[in-house]
Amino acid sequence: MTRSWWGWGTVEEAVTGAELEALLGRVRMLAPRDLTGHEPPDVSALGLLAPRVSAPTALADLCSADPADRAGHAHGKAFRDVVRNLHGDLRHVPDLVARPRRERDLVDLLDWCARDGIAAIPYGGGSSVVGGIEPRFDDDRAAVTIDLGRLDRVLEIDPVSRAARIQAGVFGPRLEDQLRPSGLTLRHFPQSFEFSTLGGWLATRAGGHYATLRTHIDDLVESMRVVTPSGINESRRLPGSGAGPSPDRLFLGSEGALGVITEAWMRLQERPRWRATASVHFADHAAAVAATRAVAQSGLHPANCRLLDSAEALVNAGVAVGGGVLILGFESADHPVGTSLDRAEELCRDHGGEIRAGAAGESTGDTWRSSFLRMPYQRDALARHSVIAETFETACTWDRYEDLHHAVTQAARVAVRKVTGQDGVVTCRFTHVYPDGPAPYFGVYAPGRWGSTVAQWDEIKAAVSEAITGNGGTITHHHAVGRDHRPWYDIQRPDPFAAALTAAKAALDPAGILNPGVLVPAP
Amino acid sequence: MTRSWWGWGTVEEAVTGAELEALLGRVRMLAPRDLTGHEPPDVSALGLLAPRVSAPTALADLCSADPADRAGHAHGKAFRDVVRNLHGDLRHVPDLVARPRRERDLVDLLDWCARDGIAAIPYGGGSSVVGGIEPRFDDDRAAVTIDLGRLDRVLEIDPVSRAARIQAGVFGPRLEDQLRPSGLTLRHFPQSFEFSTLGGWLATRAGGHYATLRTHIDDLVESMRVVTPSGINESRRLPGSGAGPSPDRLFLGSEGALGVITEAWMRLQERPRWRATASVHFADHAAAVAATRAVAQSGLHPANCRLLDSAEALVNAGVAVGGGVLILGFESADHPVGTSLDRAEELCRDHGGEIRAGAAGESTGDTWRSSFLRMPYQRDALARHSVIAETFETACTWDRYEDLHHAVTQAARVAVRKVTGQDGVVTCRFTHVYPDGPAPYFGVYAPGRWGSTVAQWDEIKAAVSEAITGNGGTITHHHAVGRDHRPWYDIQRPDPFAAALTAAKAALDPAGILNPGVLVPAP
Repeated sequence: MTRSWWGWGTVEEAVTGAELEALLGRVRMLAPRDLTGHEPPDVSALGLLAPRVSAPTALADLCSADPADRAGHAHGKAFRDVVRNLHGDLRHVPDLVARPRRERDLVDLLDWCARDGIAAIPYGGGSSVVGGIEPRFDDDRAAVTIDLGRLDRVLEIDPVSRAARIQAGVFGPRLEDQLRPSGLTLRHFPQSFEFSTLGGWLATRAGGHYATLRTHIDDLVESMRVVTPSGINESRRLPGSGAGPSPDRLFLGSEGALGVITEAWMRLQERPRWRATASVHFADHAAAVAATRAVAQSGLHPANCRLLDSAEALVNAGVAVGGGVLILGFESADHPVGTSLDRAEELCRDHGGEIRAGAAGESTGDTWRSSFLRMPYQRDALARHSVIAETFETACTWDRYEDLHHAVTQAARVAVRKVTGQDGVVTCRFTHVYPDGPAPYFGVYAPGRWGSTVAQWDEIKAAVSEAITGNGGTITHHHAVGRDHRPWYDIQRPDPFAAALTAAKAALDPAGILNPGVLVPAP
Repeated sequence: MTRSWWGWGTVEEAVTGAELEALLGRVRMLAPRDLTGHEPPDVSALGLLAPRVSAPTALADLCSADPADRAGHAHGKAFRDVVRNLHGDLRHVPDLVARPRRERDLVDLLDWCARDGIAAIPYGGGSSVVGGIEPRFDDDRAAVTIDLGRLDRVLEIDPVSRAARIQAGVFGPRLEDQLRPSGLTLRHFPQSFEFSTLGGWLATRAGGHYATLRTHIDDLVESMRVVTPSGINESRRLPGSGAGPSPDRLFLGSEGALGVITEAWMRLQERPRWRATASVHFADHAAAVAATRAVAQSGLHPANCRLLDSAEALVNAGVAVGGGVLILGFESADHPVGTSLDRAEELCRDHGGEIRAGAAGESTGDTWRSSFLRMPYQRDALARHSVIAETFETACTWDRYEDLHHAVTQAARVAVRKVTGQDGVVTCRFTHVYPDGPAPYFGVYAPGRWGSTVAQWDEIKAAVSEAITGNGGTITHHHAVGRDHRPWYDIQRPDPFAAALTAAKAALDPAGILNPGVLVPAP
């Protein structure tokens, strides 16, 4: 399998043939003006600027100046990244890609960057959708992207405490492969699982498999080891502590701006043996939301509790239903979960839900799940055919949800019409739910104009981000801030905390080399 | 009811009469040399130093220079605090006690302190057991203790999201009283519940009611409002977010060194309707620990899962059993919990546990629970009779527990024998359990010598703290760091994080007035 330099995943998995035809057939509903397919440019023809720095001799064999390598590390995997790649628009490319073999190499690389004022961008799987790993700065300093892919081992497993010491550069599948013989699993499955790393999950506070309880990778961390320009920060393996503010919580979500995560002790669990799932159809969306809230507040802790609105259900699960579909799943390694599902179904029926249990129920969930994993590939195919196709997310308290949903949907529709002159499709699902609120995740699909889809999307994104920020939402629930979310993050984040974070960064990274411009203004 | 200035709780609830006789009877097992009772000194006879500062006119009516007020705010409620009070040893007393009526008053008080270089000590219920609110500094600066007791209202309840905006100075019972009409509860019951405040719980990351899942107050926080000398830090009400490092997590556990918490939106829940409890007796302690671990790793999420070792079971629950007693409790507002208890009991039987269900089971739990709430009063009575009686706690991963337990117990026994020349009693219980480790809580009871029990205890405490720190434990699980834990906290805390925290404090509190010497060295 060959990783795509310009788009999601591997070249071999790209959408082609009948799948492409079916996809384009659905897109014709949107009445696009032009569905011409555009080929990605040849990476050798991009004419990248020559590297402006060269590595010291001792570090030379860690560093690559190969154009395909540099191009492949320039952007994340957002719609705007993929489209810019398709247009060969690689204005901001790392000068070098460095691949440390061990922590000592990383320390040496950071020392060199600090000495020479070179930006250092920590890089895991490169699946950022927020401009988090793009060497786009306020100034024209050189950049070395530090790809942690060689630090990919599970170093130690503690079967008694059910935890493992794991290197940060490991990708999801290889991580689970190494845990499998022990019978344990991390069970953190973000949509990007196949092409993202433990370190990336930690640095961005990724949302994973679980719809309730331990939704973020944060909750699975026992301790972390972080290389900072001011020294190595290693926290103690602890199941809980009340000793001062949590050191790990400073580095969780630090997006490479405070240090480079090299290892973590992660909490594991046994593989589930019992499962129970159902789909619930609702005629009315407000009732579907109320039912979902009742389940979220019940203390039943479903592993899956994903509400698809009618558009999402139609587009991605092939189900026509007026108010939405709630996909429920329970799982346990210790005990049967049927009574929990029974009670959740009862709560749904109390709100007018119609249970599609067993085979039919699983089928909706399964259809949706396989569609879920194909989504990024389909997005790429759509991008090649001038279709704007992108997602964004938030979280808010239940009392704000109706207003937020309305405002965001309206803002998206108005912006789509403004920038394309046509109507698009706006979908919404809950990826996670909490007793005090849901995490809604929106999709926007609209006919674009080749050469303009990035600018068109940026305008839509600005409009929905205003609506989110103005209606009590967070600018991101599990996608990080990066460079693209900064304007709204700066509004959301309290000013004294910004000052504290800036001061903490200055203490940890006095030369200001780590991922400049992410989280706080570059010094 | 009158609050005791020198000891726990109220004067009326002090241990007297038959309860005192029974307690002293049990203590005679320890073969004390002298059980003479000592009376607390009259507060008017303490001869406190006169206040070294006086409040500006505009703030004068917020400030008290009353000796009883100042003496009552000088120390927390640790054994060493109570004994020093009994000896009239009040070397470090706040110059004034200020009671802001509103947030604006607090801002003005901090402005005054910053202007005049006066230390400001945020104060909730004063139940610190780690020297957290004692005006003991490296220099002789004046101190104003800011008692938040007037900020005691529930300001807003959101029944849909199940959350409330609550002022930080409210004590546990009054907080629950105000929530009761809504049918909702915070359900955070630390041992100090009656005499501690929401703000104190947040500033110290208090451990509460739940033995699993949401064990710390941290997990119940939706957003916080914190007054810092650099401005007001208000986070957004969110059920979850992935936007940068969590702002709230910087202030949770900040112990008054980074700001003064004035309000928080807290997550609530419905009162439980279903309950199921049992006690399980074990002949062997290792088997009891293994059973407890199995329950902690089962995903059953008991509300109570408290393992008492044989000494703890005998001293505080009146049960003679070789390996310990596990008190199990399940509760829910939504559904019956009998099957969860059944499965937990099955796991215990697999490890040789003998179930004492129903009345007998509840009785052990109830006896222990009422004893739990009387413990601080009994500790005070013992202190008056020259008995060393104190507790300390930690948390560690399961793989380290046996070694840690052995090392800590040995260290305590050796130190007790060294400082008293006699044997004492060392007990252990788990207050909380996690899938990856328990939170053991130790008690030490030993005959002391009047006039020396503080020094004796300090030597024991140093020995057990070394053993904890050297065996992978945390210096505190829900009691904070304060001034007393600083030497071991400094070992536990990673150096780069210490630098980041120091920098963050300098940004938030440039004059260094907030609780100097707590968490980081005073500037």
